Amino acid sequence: MITSASNNRIKELSSLLEKSKERSRAGVYVIEGPRMYEEAPVFDLREVYVSESFASKEKNRELLEKHDYEVVADPVFKKLSATQNPQGILAVMAQPVYTLNEVLAGEAPLLLILEDLQDPGNLGTMIRAGEGAGLSGVILSKGCVDIYNPKVIRATMGSIFRIPFVYTEDLAETIRQVKEAGVKTYAAHLKGTAAYETFTFTEKSAFLIGNEGNGLTDEIANLADSYLKIPMLGKVESLNASVAASVLLYEAARQRRSV
Amino acid sequence: MITSASNNRIKELSSLLEKSKERSRAGVYVIEGPRMYEEAPVFDLREVYVSESFASKEKNRELLEKHDYEVVADPVFKKLSATQNPQGILAVMAQPVYTLNEVLAGEAPLLLILEDLQDPGNLGTMIRAGEGAGLSGVILSKGCVDIYNPKVIRATMGSIFRIPFVYTEDLAETIRQVKEAGVKTYAAHLKGTAAYETFTFTEKSAFLIGNEGNGLTDEIANLADSYLKIPMLGKVESLNASVAASVLLYEAARQRRSV
Repeated sequence: MITSASNNRIKELSSLLEKSKERSRAGVYVIEGPRMYEEAPVFDLREVYVSESFASKEKNRELLEKHDYEVVADPVFKKLSATQNPQGILAVMAQPVYTLNEVLAGEAPLLLILEDLQDPGNLGTMIRAGEGAGLSGVILSKGCVDIYNPKVIRATMGSIFRIPFVYTEDLAETIRQVKEAGVKTYAAHLKGTAAYETFTFTEKSAFLIGNEGNGLTDEIANLADSYLKIPMLGKVESLNASVAASVLLYEAARQRRSV
Repeated sequence: MITSASNNRIKELSSLLEKSKERSRAGVYVIEGPRMYEEAPVFDLREVYVSESFASKEKNRELLEKHDYEVVADPVFKKLSATQNPQGILAVMAQPVYTLNEVLAGEAPLLLILEDLQDPGNLGTMIRAGEGAGLSGVILSKGCVDIYNPKVIRATMGSIFRIPFVYTEDLAETIRQVKEAGVKTYAAHLKGTAAYETFTFTEKSAFLIGNEGNGLTDEIANLADSYLKIPMLGKVESLNASVAASVLLYEAARQRRSV
């Protein structure tokens, strides 16, 4: 059992939870909680840490048969957790590596293309809600928040394990490749005059979503095949990015159900 | 100028920001930032506090003509703010008092009925997204988060000033009154078998949304005229409450646009 917060593995785990660079250098990320652990693909598991009290509970026995684990004294474990109520189990996972072809796979992919999205909760919520709507992949500009940020991971509620994604150094070039693959690209944009539901999303489709404060840059918006509008009543000028993405993806899902 | 954090008004302001009971006792709430202040109804403004540096900026002069204000030394102001980056202006506002009749007003009201919703970000996001979709009022069980929590206020981005709402001690009884007023009530529920878009929301409609962890209680769900399903693909078992509410409200908006 690990009983000291100055144990090297504990220190490394801390820095993996806190620092995007460390995660990237090591090619891993950290998940928290029994629910995430249950859904985690076993072949990506590298290391598992459980608190002493978690390890001692009968109800956790079956879950703990999934992989070898290291027990950590409760006070040390508590310091590690990114949340106020630590859930007793943390796992270090290998970062999956997806290609653009995997993101574009399938007969009628439904994609999100994200430019400089900053809020981890928004990104996680989009992926979770998106999976429900049939989201098949995500393309992120290199200026987006780190998808392995613990807040993103938590908000995905496990969808992170199932939705392929790629970061791109050159978003414009990647969008050109996406369009060459026959995907229609739609930008929610002030220039849009037609309501989103007047477009047909039953074929290969991608929604371009911009930064929370600034929206899409002109360079990226100009690449879209169509601008669309999410009509807004009252004095609302914009929607939360995860709400906008969800409304568009569920409209695509609605249309795809009725085909 | 207020230069001491032990000034009585500063202490009161702190407790209004932190404590629901204090807000309720005084019948007020606190808004933060120039954008919220700009949209705030002037007849509800009670007191305005600005940081010394905010008060000294030429670009803020016009905004500061809206109401009398008290200048607060920067270090004292910084301690007051609920956010890490204080925006230089705080205002104490009178809590509006709405009746159920006001919430039900209009030819075809579009309502949210919330049971024990806990997350302030969810509530604020629903109200903001809802206003854009034509939400006309909100009914909250007394077990819901305080709508005047600064995190709710911030997430509404000003919609709090425009959407009427009521808290009810007896949610079941209030739902009966809503139904007597001719409003059709829809519960997103596991018992729902038909996808939400197969219902018609162009007449008086209300969506029942439950607690984030537990959903609607049976008692409340049983009162709904219809159960509906938000179909979910992949392994997604539920949606974030604000995403679910937004998907339903934007479907209502879509139907209402095409009438």
